[in-house]
Amino acid sequence: MKEIPVTSLQRLPIYLNYLKSLDEQDNPGTYISSKIIAEALNMGEVLVRKDLAYTSAVGKTRVGYVRRELIDAIEDYLGCNSKKNAVIFGAGGLGRALLAYSGFKNYGINIVCAFETDPKRCGRLSGKPILEYKYAKPGIEQSGAKLAIIATPASSAQEVADLLVECGIKAILNFAPILLNVPDTCKVRNMDVAANLAILSSYLD
Amino acid sequence: MKEIPVTSLQRLPIYLNYLKSLDEQDNPGTYISSKIIAEALNMGEVLVRKDLAYTSAVGKTRVGYVRRELIDAIEDYLGCNSKKNAVIFGAGGLGRALLAYSGFKNYGINIVCAFETDPKRCGRLSGKPILEYKYAKPGIEQSGAKLAIIATPASSAQEVADLLVECGIKAILNFAPILLNVPDTCKVRNMDVAANLAILSSYLD
Repeated sequence: MKEIPVTSLQRLPIYLNYLKSLDEQDNPGTYISSKIIAEALNMGEVLVRKDLAYTSAVGKTRVGYVRRELIDAIEDYLGCNSKKNAVIFGAGGLGRALLAYSGFKNYGINIVCAFETDPKRCGRLSGKPILEYKYAKPGIEQSGAKLAIIATPASSAQEVADLLVECGIKAILNFAPILLNVPDTCKVRNMDVAANLAILSSYLD
Repeated sequence: MKEIPVTSLQRLPIYLNYLKSLDEQDNPGTYISSKIIAEALNMGEVLVRKDLAYTSAVGKTRVGYVRRELIDAIEDYLGCNSKKNAVIFGAGGLGRALLAYSGFKNYGINIVCAFETDPKRCGRLSGKPILEYKYAKPGIEQSGAKLAIIATPASSAQEVADLLVECGIKAILNFAPILLNVPDTCKVRNMDVAANLAILSSYLD
């Protein structure tokens, strides 16, 4: 599978929301063209077609996409119906914000719970449990989660990553500002907030 | 200036921390080679040299870099001494986590304050003020901030972006899961957490 750029992936839920919003209007029509989508969302038509080409949707010349099929193709691509489970490590400010964040469900990702070493931070938040770190291994195994988010301080991130690999986690979104050392069987994406802000700040000079 | 990849930029503070840690040891030596750095940090030597080439540091054949000059070059590149001011919009879970985060100072970025529409969330956190949204315009002007972080819900992010452009903000780190419409004079980097997790989850199939 050709890897989709983050920027394209980020636009798919925007197309989806727009296409679904048409359902609420009277008689939205069977077909919808990339031109109509582009105009409604203030984007370029070529960009829209390129983004949608990552999904299985196929547009027809002149009429465009069957709207209902396009919705299904985007939902399918985003895995909206797949219900993939994910766990969070660290329930400090960032971990708590992520646990409460509702945007994951747009991509079919279900945050099961968070794990935390400080018992005082354990409990429930937004209806989701924050469990003690010592329960991480059985917790991950029971949930069947293959995705994890590391939102711990840098000093404990590698230890957490080692545990995750041991528990069969296959992909890690890492917010800790360190490089994790994991085997090739586990993918890592780094979300270093400060580094991203620094790149922006370099434009100011 | 050639734009540095995020992955390279993220490694610069790691090199810096390592080089500085040598100061605490006895007799660290005048020179340090990319080979020594690579071995100490468990990285490839070519990668280290490539990363360091973004800075003004120049290595000599066989001996490597003057350690003190390399530290200065990395600090200079990261703008550690520049003290760029930034403001945060939104003091929900994510905004509060960012306000309390100490990692920005590694890149010479000083978070001045946060702005928030809900008066109940206003006050102080980690010694930094959370001010009411209505004070955003004079607040930004007084601080001279050119950088901003949007950590509001998607529904208010565009309104905030419009205000930021009006106040002379030149670069925005956007956590809201929408595409911001701003003029070319203002740079935007999107940090869509859910989209990044979704990309990772696509590796699981």
